[in-house]
Amino acid sequence: MSVLVVGSVALDSVETPFGKAEDVLGGSGTFFSASASHLTPVQLVGVVGSDYPTHKLESLSARGVDLSGVERADGESFRWRGRYRHDLNSAETLETRLGVFSHFRPKIPEQFRSAPYVFLANIDPRLQLEVLRQVERPKLVACDTMNFWIESRRSDLLELLKHVDAILLNDGEARQLTEQSNLVRAARWILGQGPRIVIIKKGEHGAFMFTAHSVFFAPAYPLEDVFDPTGAGDSFAGGFMGYLARTGKLDEEHMRRAVVYGSAMGSFAVEKFSIDRLLELDHDMIRARLDEFRRLVAFQEELPA
Amino acid sequence: MSVLVVGSVALDSVETPFGKAEDVLGGSGTFFSASASHLTPVQLVGVVGSDYPTHKLESLSARGVDLSGVERADGESFRWRGRYRHDLNSAETLETRLGVFSHFRPKIPEQFRSAPYVFLANIDPRLQLEVLRQVERPKLVACDTMNFWIESRRSDLLELLKHVDAILLNDGEARQLTEQSNLVRAARWILGQGPRIVIIKKGEHGAFMFTAHSVFFAPAYPLEDVFDPTGAGDSFAGGFMGYLARTGKLDEEHMRRAVVYGSAMGSFAVEKFSIDRLLELDHDMIRARLDEFRRLVAFQEELPA
Repeated sequence: MSVLVVGSVALDSVETPFGKAEDVLGGSGTFFSASASHLTPVQLVGVVGSDYPTHKLESLSARGVDLSGVERADGESFRWRGRYRHDLNSAETLETRLGVFSHFRPKIPEQFRSAPYVFLANIDPRLQLEVLRQVERPKLVACDTMNFWIESRRSDLLELLKHVDAILLNDGEARQLTEQSNLVRAARWILGQGPRIVIIKKGEHGAFMFTAHSVFFAPAYPLEDVFDPTGAGDSFAGGFMGYLARTGKLDEEHMRRAVVYGSAMGSFAVEKFSIDRLLELDHDMIRARLDEFRRLVAFQEELPA
Repeated sequence: MSVLVVGSVALDSVETPFGKAEDVLGGSGTFFSASASHLTPVQLVGVVGSDYPTHKLESLSARGVDLSGVERADGESFRWRGRYRHDLNSAETLETRLGVFSHFRPKIPEQFRSAPYVFLANIDPRLQLEVLRQVERPKLVACDTMNFWIESRRSDLLELLKHVDAILLNDGEARQLTEQSNLVRAARWILGQGPRIVIIKKGEHGAFMFTAHSVFFAPAYPLEDVFDPTGAGDSFAGGFMGYLARTGKLDEEHMRRAVVYGSAMGSFAVEKFSIDRLLELDHDMIRARLDEFRRLVAFQEELPA
């Protein structure tokens, strides 16, 4: 089954201790699509400026991403420029130019409106709500958000939470949204607002999935070289939603496995700049990493004394 | 089989957001013993001052901890006073009075010298080396250390690493010791110094065990209330060594399970002040938590699509 994603399609310029990249493909919608497309057909809705090198998006359409919802508007494309220092845990934003993204009003094409799986990437919660008004009873809706919206659009975000099945956010955002420093309490608070699945991502420290009755944890893959952390969270979301859409199942076991797919795709994304590593992957490489995740946490229930 | 631990026996005064405790049982040897004694007989070597309320240690001897190696010296006992703020991740030391601990020279009683499992808790690496000169070919020797020794006794610590099978240290210490920010690289560096098992504890973010051929990860148990983090690391070590000593096996599967026992015992330790929670435990409670650890990370290898 296909997954619809509404998010940014940007040009990133990134500096890490290992190198530099200028005006490469970026944005939450882009990373999500590159990741999820390994698992299921993807429909992308976003906006680019008249300066966007749209031929570069061909790598996505070649992977089965339907770009007919990517609008081209007059003006500059969304550009982000950031730098990572040695710890690689937090980006320092050097410049954000929203360009045409600042006036983005998502219009979901007719042929996308019945998408069974919908991911509302990190955009204004008012726009996330607008998307939900345009789609027809999806089977699963998940959203992301960020500190900026938690501060400036709190009431809209709380309204959104009433209408989504799942939210994926990082630990800092969860603490900020809930004013709870303990993540178990934070997750419980969010579950009380509407979503029945709360995924709290802790970057290199892994990710928790909380439901009313269970807690699941997947570690981050212990990489020796994290090249560029940009897009890890959106790639995680792509793996999570992509796996669920592919299987069409939403029980606990499939959701746990979806979190591991998310962790695997996030771990690939950080191995190169932009979506470069995601584009190189094949089924066997993804399966091999899943296997490594299994071995990473496997221990036997009982052993002879 | 029994485990010998050489470490501090202290009096702690701790303030957390949830309460205060004055002059309660503390020290690495104490936490380790309280934890490991649930799994195997423990022999404790340490020193207390003439002011130590030794009757309080009866809770340990009642649990099968042999205290005949705890020397009583003239002078004040080791006292630590610390405070945890809301995030509970790092202790603020308000006062350290080493007292008789500053002149401690561990003397391993005759009857302890053949202990098959030896844990060198966080003391001066010169003393850790002195302990090793007094014991007879243990089956497994593990050590802990801290930032202070990494700075002030680096060459002794590197010498010690040649003679231990395992080291348990936290992520900050691993980075400081190896000057590698990446933990996989840090672990590899330490493995190159001698130990064949490197356990890097990340507090609330879980623990890694690295060997030359494998990586294992155990999450920290997601507690809703962390009451007092003091002693979590030593309780982890107690669970790890205690499980190995109980089973007498050192293969990969037993070591993985030992790390989970360590995580479980660490998660109990932080639920109350001092060793109070560790003293309340019984076999069923420990087994139940092991089971929760298993469920926390369990996912099926393959599912029907």
